[in-house]
Amino acid sequence: MTTARRDTYTPETLLSVAVQVFIERGYDGTSMEHLSKAAGISKSSIYHHVSGKEELLRRAVSRALDELFGILDEEHARVGSAAGRLEYVVRRMVEVLMAELPYVTLLLRVRGNTDTERWALERRREFDHRVAALLKAAAVEGDVRADVEVRLATRLVFGMINSIVEWYRPEGPDGRGGAGGAGEGEVVDAVVRLVFGGLRKAS
Amino acid sequence: MTTARRDTYTPETLLSVAVQVFIERGYDGTSMEHLSKAAGISKSSIYHHVSGKEELLRRAVSRALDELFGILDEEHARVGSAAGRLEYVVRRMVEVLMAELPYVTLLLRVRGNTDTERWALERRREFDHRVAALLKAAAVEGDVRADVEVRLATRLVFGMINSIVEWYRPEGPDGRGGAGGAGEGEVVDAVVRLVFGGLRKAS
Repeated sequence: MTTARRDTYTPETLLSVAVQVFIERGYDGTSMEHLSKAAGISKSSIYHHVSGKEELLRRAVSRALDELFGILDEEHARVGSAAGRLEYVVRRMVEVLMAELPYVTLLLRVRGNTDTERWALERRREFDHRVAALLKAAAVEGDVRADVEVRLATRLVFGMINSIVEWYRPEGPDGRGGAGGAGEGEVVDAVVRLVFGGLRKAS
Repeated sequence: MTTARRDTYTPETLLSVAVQVFIERGYDGTSMEHLSKAAGISKSSIYHHVSGKEELLRRAVSRALDELFGILDEEHARVGSAAGRLEYVVRRMVEVLMAELPYVTLLLRVRGNTDTERWALERRREFDHRVAALLKAAAVEGDVRADVEVRLATRLVFGMINSIVEWYRPEGPDGRGGAGGAGEGEVVDAVVRLVFGGLRKAS
């Protein structure tokens, strides 16, 4: 586990440590005592920065949600055919997931026992609906198959993308990731190819 | 939570109740006390049937693993082109996942802290390798795209399939499932279409 030294300590470090502890112990199973030990600072020092663990959770999932919603505001997500915009969004989702791996992992594990968790789930659903709307528009424009119901297709595509958090690990100093050496670009290309073209060989 | 009545109590009921408790509390977080309360029988009655919670875990994940490995012995998984066999296996995996939902869910959540968990992970890896070998054979036969590395493609396809446990709920008495009404057959067809053909409209 990452342990912050007192002399290099910043609120950013606290957030990063808290996210690791939340992922390892589960949010419910994490106490301020656990956070204090992992961060190497006293509980009162933590309270100097945040009101409690729920604020840390909110900041952490906000970071993931802001990055995800940010994708939808990017030019290629707003201009062009729905299918083209959808492909861009899928590509960027995978990129954000890998760049913000712990934050997205935590977001995906949120269950909904507190206000912050319910809020995060609501925002996730909103994001899902935005992508589903894009998929629906692409089907209407005739560029995407219409024989799989939109919500079902969205769930399955998100399922493939989100499953990356289970095995992807950023590249180590040896330039190889933990996923049998699959680099970031390779994963992004694979997802885009499979989501749009499937396994079958393009004829 | 399902609670078994004493008068209808069977070892099968105990297993089914244990799986629910393991899923809700996590295997590590489940005590014999929790199992006893949920099953509505004394701890000594449980010990009459099994040596402890690890045996219940082993029986539960064995049920899922036996069903999954059983697929590979079925005729359509053994005879024909590799691509045809792969498609059959994908279809049957989704069927097994839905038919044995709690058992497969538990299998997918196993983390590896005990001998039984490590054994289950090893068996899962073995199953993954069997499917990856089929995918590789299909690529060699020229029926499956070769521009996505086999292990990566296998991970992503398994990711899509396994994500179904997060939202699929069997059909209720009203004939509608919990997944916005997507029935079992609809889910199976959607997965097969997306895994092999992707979202892009067949031209």
